[in-house]
Amino acid sequence: MIDTQAFRNGMALLGGAVNVITTDGEAGRFGFTATAVCSVTDEPPTLLVCMNRNSYAHDHFKTNGVLCVNVLNGDHQNVSWDFANRDLNSEERFSRHSFTNLTTGAPALDEALVNFDCTIHESHEMGSHTVFYCRIQDVRIGSADAGLVYFNRNYHRLCDSSVA
Amino acid sequence: MIDTQAFRNGMALLGGAVNVITTDGEAGRFGFTATAVCSVTDEPPTLLVCMNRNSYAHDHFKTNGVLCVNVLNGDHQNVSWDFANRDLNSEERFSRHSFTNLTTGAPALDEALVNFDCTIHESHEMGSHTVFYCRIQDVRIGSADAGLVYFNRNYHRLCDSSVA
Repeated sequence: MIDTQAFRNGMALLGGAVNVITTDGEAGRFGFTATAVCSVTDEPPTLLVCMNRNSYAHDHFKTNGVLCVNVLNGDHQNVSWDFANRDLNSEERFSRHSFTNLTTGAPALDEALVNFDCTIHESHEMGSHTVFYCRIQDVRIGSADAGLVYFNRNYHRLCDSSVA
Repeated sequence: MIDTQAFRNGMALLGGAVNVITTDGEAGRFGFTATAVCSVTDEPPTLLVCMNRNSYAHDHFKTNGVLCVNVLNGDHQNVSWDFANRDLNSEERFSRHSFTNLTTGAPALDEALVNFDCTIHESHEMGSHTVFYCRIQDVRIGSADAGLVYFNRNYHRLCDSSVA
């Protein structure tokens, strides 16, 4: 098996969209920045989100049972920073940006590329992380035309003029 | 719940690295193109790959019990096409490109951005797909400096000059 540093150096080369994952409900409002999100199946519409079990917000996501995947647009680096900033508490993070409730009550970031509003259907523990399998209850597509991707430890702005 | 078309239109905006997933072993050699790959945990080093259960190669991956995630570089659009082309059989796909065995025997694409050579640790069925949880036995980092990302139904070349 490889060591942690080799794992991290390799994973830095797997580019991924930058997302803010939010929840709200009886446990309160929380959010964090994540790239480990992917599509699973369209029957029924399902995605997955990986979350560190040591994160202070982890159990609150489980209690609320809902989450919204907010896919950041190319100008949303500041949103990514705020929701990854351990010096900001939950209310400070949310107060800096604008959100709307869609179906589940999880906060949907306005001007995201797309919001996937979900119920958590199943949780699967794997090492230090939980994989949340989420059923998509609502989707809202924004008007932005550029995405934000994290690759090689840098943010990249993706737009159609960068087509390979 | 949302419909299939809304799911697909939303997911088209979740940019992701383009990968070719390969296997070899008693069931033979197979490979397919996938974006639904993500990091899970570094304790122990684990990633996941989502695969359609209706794919002809699905059961062969399970039988072999190993797979390699080959993260394509920015000039690998042709590799992506070949491994997504239903008109090419397995041997035709592999004969067009160069591969090396690392630890498990799953073919590692030469000049990939990075190869993650894995054993399949666990399979989790979800709707039409199987999620393979894979333990990373070996990693090889290539010399390419650009990645290939699929976003908004187009390929994009990511390099450090495209930093946001």
